[in-house]
Amino acid sequence: MAQPTSKEQPKYELLYHPGIPGRGEFIRLSFEASGVPYLDVAQDQEDGYSTVQQFCMNKGLESGDGNPPVFSPPALRVPGAGKDGSALVISQTPNILWYLGDRLGMLPDDEAGKYHVQQLVLTALDLNNEVHDTHHPIAVMKYYEDQKEEALKKAQDVRENRIPKYLSYFDRVRQHNEQSSGGQGKYLVGNKLTYADTTIWQILDGLFFAFSKEMAARKKEFPDLLGLFYESVKSEKGIKEYLSSKRRMPYSEGIFRHYPELDRQ
Amino acid sequence: MAQPTSKEQPKYELLYHPGIPGRGEFIRLSFEASGVPYLDVAQDQEDGYSTVQQFCMNKGLESGDGNPPVFSPPALRVPGAGKDGSALVISQTPNILWYLGDRLGMLPDDEAGKYHVQQLVLTALDLNNEVHDTHHPIAVMKYYEDQKEEALKKAQDVRENRIPKYLSYFDRVRQHNEQSSGGQGKYLVGNKLTYADTTIWQILDGLFFAFSKEMAARKKEFPDLLGLFYESVKSEKGIKEYLSSKRRMPYSEGIFRHYPELDRQ
Repeated sequence: MAQPTSKEQPKYELLYHPGIPGRGEFIRLSFEASGVPYLDVAQDQEDGYSTVQQFCMNKGLESGDGNPPVFSPPALRVPGAGKDGSALVISQTPNILWYLGDRLGMLPDDEAGKYHVQQLVLTALDLNNEVHDTHHPIAVMKYYEDQKEEALKKAQDVRENRIPKYLSYFDRVRQHNEQSSGGQGKYLVGNKLTYADTTIWQILDGLFFAFSKEMAARKKEFPDLLGLFYESVKSEKGIKEYLSSKRRMPYSEGIFRHYPELDRQ
Repeated sequence: MAQPTSKEQPKYELLYHPGIPGRGEFIRLSFEASGVPYLDVAQDQEDGYSTVQQFCMNKGLESGDGNPPVFSPPALRVPGAGKDGSALVISQTPNILWYLGDRLGMLPDDEAGKYHVQQLVLTALDLNNEVHDTHHPIAVMKYYEDQKEEALKKAQDVRENRIPKYLSYFDRVRQHNEQSSGGQGKYLVGNKLTYADTTIWQILDGLFFAFSKEMAARKKEFPDLLGLFYESVKSEKGIKEYLSSKRRMPYSEGIFRHYPELDRQ
């Protein structure tokens, strides 16, 4: 599919699994919020997923274009940005977000602010991993049904202890920024949208899907983070357009899954 | 304790738990390899751990010096490097390593190389988390003994599936670099030591401690990574001196623990 603002070949190529938001979504949101065109290879190109597999899931000594191997998707390919004019291929979600940050205008101008965005995003991605482990606490390659007993225990701990700890942290960061940068409570670092906002928004959105009862209860505890902040990011121009487009994919068998038995009872 | 090269007040302050290598060790190794002095606050200062707790484990709206809160240690404090001449406080291991990378000479000169170091380090730190979860698969705040049954299953999966997958990846990166940069098989990115080498070295060292039987068997499969590369990093000047000093702490109740029942039987 053509991107909304793309009349020429996009400069950036996202290499990720098709059909799920997953970890690719943090990168998509950065592009969509900034209005910079990108190619979502597995979604936009015929037979695109075989390109993703070739770059990110091969067992050889390079990903492609002379770059070292990638452990797993997502990866970013930037034609012309690598060694000697070849394409650059980099992987790991927070690494890709950092690379794109200044280029997409999704980081603050000051150095301290940039590092504060990144520490927040790394912390949020830790929570993302913990949420994944609620349905796969023992083995990533086995079915949920084969580790359901352990998943019930893990999910209880994540709901009761980890989610409130992270939500409290994100909300304290939000309050700190409201007081120090005049972010009006709508931004986590500085006074404009950064990829800390879009990344944490995505995780909150996934949590609302996966643990709807738990999050409904937590909303009373964190009304500004789960209300004001969440709604505000959702209504940012690029994000709003994206969420109403077909490019936004529904949650399914990815990180955020709704198993009623894992939610608050 | 005074650091070997420090005659003046060190520029960098590491805020971490005392008495364990833990995640702080990845940062210590970067300093030690480069010979740049640092203050290991909880180890070097009387009552230093209360400073760490004050900055990294408080429930308020800032860590200190006007910086946003820290989720958990390690953090780095750099007097004078923050907003308006105050101290900068940043957290998250890979974020700190990136901040220090160029400053300590622990990153390659080319941009592609820097991002390839970081993707490798982020991948290695994912393995570090998976190893932690072998003894704490259900709840980080509960005792190992209270989740031992699940730990036996988790450890089996990590040993049989995850460790070989990561080792194969690191070794393919090493081989790729040997062919493309003349790293002689001793370096993972480029032709000098980077924090990708020290970080992956630390994880291999921890694995040798935690899963000694498993790793003895894997050494036959990955002789260059677990032999040539491992020994080579260990003999780098700054690392060699550090490992024979009292500053290098033994593994104990941290990420890498040796429970014989979790090792290969």
